[in-house]
Amino acid sequence: MTDGDRSPVSVLGLGAMGKALAGAFLDRGHPTTVWNRTAGRADALVARGARRADTPAEAMAASPVTVVCLLDDAAVRETLGPAAGALAGRALVNLTNGTPEQARAMAGWAAGQGVDYVDGGIMAVPPMIGQDGALILYSGSREAFGAHERTLGALGSAVYLDEDPGRAALYDLALLSAMYGMFGGFFHALAMTGSEKVPAAEFTPMVVGWLNAMIAGLPAMAAAIDSGDHSAADSNVEMQAVSYVNLLDASRAQGVGTELVEPMGALLHRAVAEGLGAGAVSSLVGLLRTDPARR
Amino acid sequence: MTDGDRSPVSVLGLGAMGKALAGAFLDRGHPTTVWNRTAGRADALVARGARRADTPAEAMAASPVTVVCLLDDAAVRETLGPAAGALAGRALVNLTNGTPEQARAMAGWAAGQGVDYVDGGIMAVPPMIGQDGALILYSGSREAFGAHERTLGALGSAVYLDEDPGRAALYDLALLSAMYGMFGGFFHALAMTGSEKVPAAEFTPMVVGWLNAMIAGLPAMAAAIDSGDHSAADSNVEMQAVSYVNLLDASRAQGVGTELVEPMGALLHRAVAEGLGAGAVSSLVGLLRTDPARR
Ligand SMILES: NC(=O)c1ccc[n+]([C@@H]2O[C@H](COP(=O)([O-])OP(=O)(O)OC[C@H]3O[C@@H](n4cnc5c(N)ncnc54)[C@H](OP(=O)(O)O)[C@@H]3O)[C@@H](O)[C@H]2O)c1
Ligand SMILES: NC(=O)c1ccc[n+]([C@@H]2O[C@H](COP(=O)([O-])OP(=O)(O)OC[C@H]3O[C@@H](n4cnc5c(N)ncnc54)[C@H](OP(=O)(O)O)[C@@H]3O)[C@@H](O)[C@H]2O)c1
Repeated sequence: MTDGDRSPVSVLGLGAMGKALAGAFLDRGHPTTVWNRTAGRADALVARGARRADTPAEAMAASPVTVVCLLDDAAVRETLGPAAGALAGRALVNLTNGTPEQARAMAGWAAGQGVDYVDGGIMAVPPMIGQDGALILYSGSREAFGAHERTLGALGSAVYLDEDPGRAALYDLALLSAMYGMFGGFFHALAMTGSEKVPAAEFTPMVVGWLNAMIAGLPAMAAAIDSGDHSAADSNVEMQAVSYVNLLDASRAQGVGTELVEPMGALLHRAVAEGLGAGAVSSLVGLLRTDPARR
Repeated sequence: MTDGDRSPVSVLGLGAMGKALAGAFLDRGHPTTVWNRTAGRADALVARGARRADTPAEAMAASPVTVVCLLDDAAVRETLGPAAGALAGRALVNLTNGTPEQARAMAGWAAGQGVDYVDGGIMAVPPMIGQDGALILYSGSREAFGAHERTLGALGSAVYLDEDPGRAALYDLALLSAMYGMFGGFFHALAMTGSEKVPAAEFTPMVVGWLNAMIAGLPAMAAAIDSGDHSAADSNVEMQAVSYVNLLDASRAQGVGTELVEPMGALLHRAVAEGLGAGAVSSLVGLLRTDPARR
């Protein structure tokens, strides 16, 4: 993040995340204009110096760059639609979660308005915003990103990926899938130990230590995935498929639903059935690719 | 881990893990007797100084404590059955993956033989064995664990949990479920980015950074789970259920199977349907508990 940039910025959407974004701009001294469908949500920001706009178009007219952070793509279209035609020459940075296809469609819409479009993915929770640890991924107009990079730096570590506006959304959703996998495993683990009244706070440090140890193995898995050589078998798939049955049996015996963990068991068994049992578990990635043209 | 203990130890099972266990005992100077169903797998260890036993009973007779690490509970029963009656006064430490029920049943069998039984779970991959970073969980006979704690210290950090022989298996399987959740999310993430030909080695450091950032939030989730107060809503469940649809849609569009990630989407939607949409995602643990008596 760089200091010294005090150019005006507008924020559309003041949910938990939009409030954090606008707050980070205010913290850095940017003249900040805000709009939210439910106007009262702007009150605390206005008390801190933000300017309240009555309409999205008014907010966008107030600054060279507008950051949008609404619930979803439908909300973005509903919000920006009425402003169409009045925004030429401005830049739009859409940090609303969405798909690559939605990002590309918005980029097309923006081009029709003479608006420079940047799509983004926020890899942080609201309390992290404004710190270097908050990673924000961007893709789309390289010029618009470059022109507003210092302003966007107020939000966290800005990483520009690609001119394809959909790239940030792809990375965002891929990272979210990694996070939800981990959360799901964590929730299942706590349901298992909780069934024996072990407090979550007592077991969690052990989970954290274990996950950190296993994260250390991810780069080696990545190398195997890139090379296609899954023969290293410190922990062979067949053995893992066998112990996975214990995980499922014990969950059921403890009264824990197996909905989150069953698919991995099925995938391990499929790998064994496809002759991958003697190798490493990194081979499972290939089984998830359903489109041969994209392998 | 403590030094200076050089008491004899036997190892039954020389798969990838058993070899690492026997190797760690040899590294610490323990007279080590080994047995494996396929005898040739002992050759390298014998070359390093291990003594080869022709039968499991011979191996167990050679040492006050025997560590068992076979594929599964069926293999353990098949291996130990013929040795029954000849083992009184010895200690058995079973590090084979299994369920709490299997551990309790083995403890009962061992008691009938006059054998002290300790069950264990290895939270490490073979290359970690012998280092402090290798966590090994134990439960069952406190006396037998105490008597052989220094010997077992050769394998990694030994943590004794409980007299209930099933406790180590419960923790082991819970930790494995956390690991498989994370692996599943990682595999899905790499399948998504791989569909755009992004090398796994290029994307993985970003995943690692992101998972580390999200792991930092697990203790706060644990506190919410213990208190039952899921009202903190920096990232509300309803918003997450909405963006999860993007994750699924984008996966399908990229030709990636959604089998590993669908159940979490369904759970998020169930949480919304049950009125938990405005709160935090930590509430999902409660939805996994199917047995009201264990909640
Ligand atoms: N919170 C996080 O941890 C986090 C992290 C990364 C990314 N994100 C993403 O950031 C975006 C916002 O999340 P959030 O946590 O701020 O959600 P939130 O607290 O639920 O807020 C949702 C926002 O969207 C607005 N909105 C919803 N429907 C609308 C519509 N039809 N027209 C206009 N405005 C509408 C809401 O306005 P009202 O106030 O009028 O309802 C509110 O400002 C989402 O895409 C989310 O995936 C969030
Ligand atoms: N590897 C890991 O990363 C890891 C981590 C933690 C825990 N564990 C656990 O450690 C245990 C062993 O895993 P591993 O990685 O060593 O597996 P492995 O390499 O596949 O070896 C399996 C071992 O079990 C033996 N075995 C299988 N069926 C048998 C039977 N019916 N009678 C006698 N012996 C039999 C095999 O003997 P043969 O040589 O004769 O086939 C071999 O010694 C498993 O319970 C596993 O869950 C492994």
